[in-house]
Amino acid sequence: MEAERADGAGLPSDYGSLTEPVKRELRAVVGDNHFKDDMQTRVTHSYDGTPMLQALPDGVVYPGSTEEVAGVMRILSRHRIPLVSRGSGTNLCGGTVPVQGGIVMVMHRMNKIVEVDLENLTATVQPGLNTKQFIAHVESLGLFYPPDPSSMAVSTIGGNIAECSGGLRGLKYGTTKDYVLGLTAVLASGEVIRTGGKLMKDVAGYDLTKLLVGSEGTLAVITEATLKLIPPPKFKKTLLAMYKDIYGAARTVSKIIEHRIIPATLEFLDNPTIRVVDDFAKLGLPLDMEAILLIEQDGDPETVERDIAVIERVCRGENAERVEVAASEEEALKLLTARRSAFTALARLRPTTILEDATVPRSKIADMVLAINRIAEKHRVNICTFGHAGDGNLHPTATTDARDPEEVHRVEAAFEEIFEAAIALGGTITGEHGVGMVKAPFLEWKVGPAGIEMMRGIKRAFDPQGLLNPGKMFAKSARRRVVIDRG
Amino acid sequence: MEAERADGAGLPSDYGSLTEPVKRELRAVVGDNHFKDDMQTRVTHSYDGTPMLQALPDGVVYPGSTEEVAGVMRILSRHRIPLVSRGSGTNLCGGTVPVQGGIVMVMHRMNKIVEVDLENLTATVQPGLNTKQFIAHVESLGLFYPPDPSSMAVSTIGGNIAECSGGLRGLKYGTTKDYVLGLTAVLASGEVIRTGGKLMKDVAGYDLTKLLVGSEGTLAVITEATLKLIPPPKFKKTLLAMYKDIYGAARTVSKIIEHRIIPATLEFLDNPTIRVVDDFAKLGLPLDMEAILLIEQDGDPETVERDIAVIERVCRGENAERVEVAASEEEALKLLTARRSAFTALARLRPTTILEDATVPRSKIADMVLAINRIAEKHRVNICTFGHAGDGNLHPTATTDARDPEEVHRVEAAFEEIFEAAIALGGTITGEHGVGMVKAPFLEWKVGPAGIEMMRGIKRAFDPQGLLNPGKMFAKSARRRVVIDRG
Repeated sequence: MEAERADGAGLPSDYGSLTEPVKRELRAVVGDNHFKDDMQTRVTHSYDGTPMLQALPDGVVYPGSTEEVAGVMRILSRHRIPLVSRGSGTNLCGGTVPVQGGIVMVMHRMNKIVEVDLENLTATVQPGLNTKQFIAHVESLGLFYPPDPSSMAVSTIGGNIAECSGGLRGLKYGTTKDYVLGLTAVLASGEVIRTGGKLMKDVAGYDLTKLLVGSEGTLAVITEATLKLIPPPKFKKTLLAMYKDIYGAARTVSKIIEHRIIPATLEFLDNPTIRVVDDFAKLGLPLDMEAILLIEQDGDPETVERDIAVIERVCRGENAERVEVAASEEEALKLLTARRSAFTALARLRPTTILEDATVPRSKIADMVLAINRIAEKHRVNICTFGHAGDGNLHPTATTDARDPEEVHRVEAAFEEIFEAAIALGGTITGEHGVGMVKAPFLEWKVGPAGIEMMRGIKRAFDPQGLLNPGKMFAKSARRRVVIDRG
Repeated sequence: MEAERADGAGLPSDYGSLTEPVKRELRAVVGDNHFKDDMQTRVTHSYDGTPMLQALPDGVVYPGSTEEVAGVMRILSRHRIPLVSRGSGTNLCGGTVPVQGGIVMVMHRMNKIVEVDLENLTATVQPGLNTKQFIAHVESLGLFYPPDPSSMAVSTIGGNIAECSGGLRGLKYGTTKDYVLGLTAVLASGEVIRTGGKLMKDVAGYDLTKLLVGSEGTLAVITEATLKLIPPPKFKKTLLAMYKDIYGAARTVSKIIEHRIIPATLEFLDNPTIRVVDDFAKLGLPLDMEAILLIEQDGDPETVERDIAVIERVCRGENAERVEVAASEEEALKLLTARRSAFTALARLRPTTILEDATVPRSKIADMVLAINRIAEKHRVNICTFGHAGDGNLHPTATTDARDPEEVHRVEAAFEEIFEAAIALGGTITGEHGVGMVKAPFLEWKVGPAGIEMMRGIKRAFDPQGLLNPGKMFAKSARRRVVIDRG
């Protein structure tokens, strides 16, 4: 295998073509209506939520069952054609851009809640199911599925699993990984595996379930998932703490945890984010504050009241200018919804929005905010920072213009330094968005050459032909972001 | 590679010998005092907590640091000598029996708590640290590390991580996997990798942390772990529910969960277990009951009182004969300690005790207990059943005599049927004890041929020479237990 023909995972990348006979085979599996290769469909699936990345697939397939996915995969495996499986494509790491062409597999037809098991508190669902719809259904049964990525109104459970999505409730309740008990998945060969089950404990062999969660479609195509549900909290209370001193806000984060309180949500918004969110959601937030913490605690009423009282004291102790408890559930929901809209609100500022995902130990939040601001200033770029401060998971977000290469270059240089700063603080290059294409050049910074070599070995074991989501997670070498145009 | 020379993972098993020059190399790394090959030391490390399995290692090494582990591993890798790393060897799956000889690496010198980080609520520890000692230290700082395997008075954190140990608090708090945030590990090549960190979220590449937890020493040698700590519950209450109807007890388990209550502990003991535990711990338990549930709830006082009241009602609704709330924390602790002693107590009955680990969805507990009793009767073997009923994790335990091959054969036949029954009920062959040698022949029943092939691929990627704990997890073929004598 020549070096030029190897991809980042050390796998061959001399793929087969999607010829007419292959298309006929695919149509025979999924039905004529569920394979498309017209230009409009191909263009529609050439990009995802990530700015500045685009590559045309050769065809798009919409399977209706695990068996159809397996049938498609057997065909693609025989003809060495790459596959990118995707849900709504809300990811921000270029995770579903078909950089090697081939087939994009859209899971939207497989969108059923197969079962909610009230005795075992599990739900079995198909990957194309919309996250928010699933959460609402579960709540209507008096149960709770905590992972709540900001994209949940659009995203799918399958996408959440592929990326190991987090969300606002991650601090107390964990991320998608903590709720996936079992998976049905189609391997690159077309074989079907079933991992885990309705089991709270299972140590039969290596944990393929947790390995597949967050594997970004590079190891298998997930076609069904058994998820853990939990009893919902009985009561919630939401508090806004407003600071003129941004580092006081950051310090508050670890102080709260030091007081042995794990809030359900502990969000941070800096001044530029406050401004755009308020302009978008008309909340009447004070625009002269340097930072706001949005804190929610849930549980039994007595516990929540006690915790909120302590949190309030901690905020004031760290020089919060104002601390306000939401007067009603509606007001609290409005605040959380506004926070979820931060990305959308920021996106209105300038043509291109690049939202990053650096994560540090929560004790380093203040240092990280300081580093981000210093780096933004150095490179003369506009970066707003918000995020899940309780998890140490910040989303520094640059508003820029993809048509200005010089400015984009400065933005990329700034983010490179931000990743470096996160690593230096004991953090990681991505807390919940995934590696995809965007972070691939930086993965080695976090996991080291030996770590990346083990990951490549796993990839080769699952996908020896390199067909599943090629070009993701593993970079050939470069450290810089690229705009791809295969069209 | 000839089939005869391949082990269960499809790797070569023609190992090199521990010659005098190699011993000198090892002594140069760890110091003369920390390598031993006298017969007494070798015999002492030829078995673990599992009955009827024994194999002599060629030497025993006691490293003092990650660097020494790496140095040892580089030597063994060069000479193709297998390594079994171990803590106290309390596992029950033959996980640390050196079936291919070679080196046993005992981690007891690496037993330090490197750091407890009160801001991030993490602890960084060495693998040889005793579990109970660690828990006590953490509690003295007002924090909580939930995984509490019954062996914790003897076991080590490294062993817990290798096996992904559970315990009595698993139902509400999860198992070891849920508390490992980062690892330092030495690969088969001697290279060192660092995974995760003091990070609540990290999706940089495949989740090597969770992959290594429960990998039973077959992928790497863990030399340091960063663990998650949580705030401790403020209050606990313990309840005993006693049943003449064993299935009423089993039904109670899922009924409690259906009431949206997740107790901290929900243990089941059948009549034979009640008798031996009472005889051992002198608790005055009623010996005419068919089953006892030992239920603990923790949290804030108001919540606990409310939950315990509901649980009491549920127990009575399922025909509990008596329901008693422990009068004091001392009484509760005595009950939990007695439950933890079940294995020890049963071990006094007859010369050989085989404790198994079948796990089912919790709604199937009643069916599983029924199946175990039917199978025990069919094979005329004495099986007591107890376990973590809330997790669906039962420990059917046979008391037998290894010197009676005919009876041992019947016990093995019975367990084979029990595993089959667990799988048929949507369960698994092991919930918290691991695969090791004992379950290796049954692994395919749970994960299927394609699943096992993916696991073999992972093994080959990490350990291409097959040096790390060979003969574990992957069976060549047999389904039956074997008594090995390499001595």
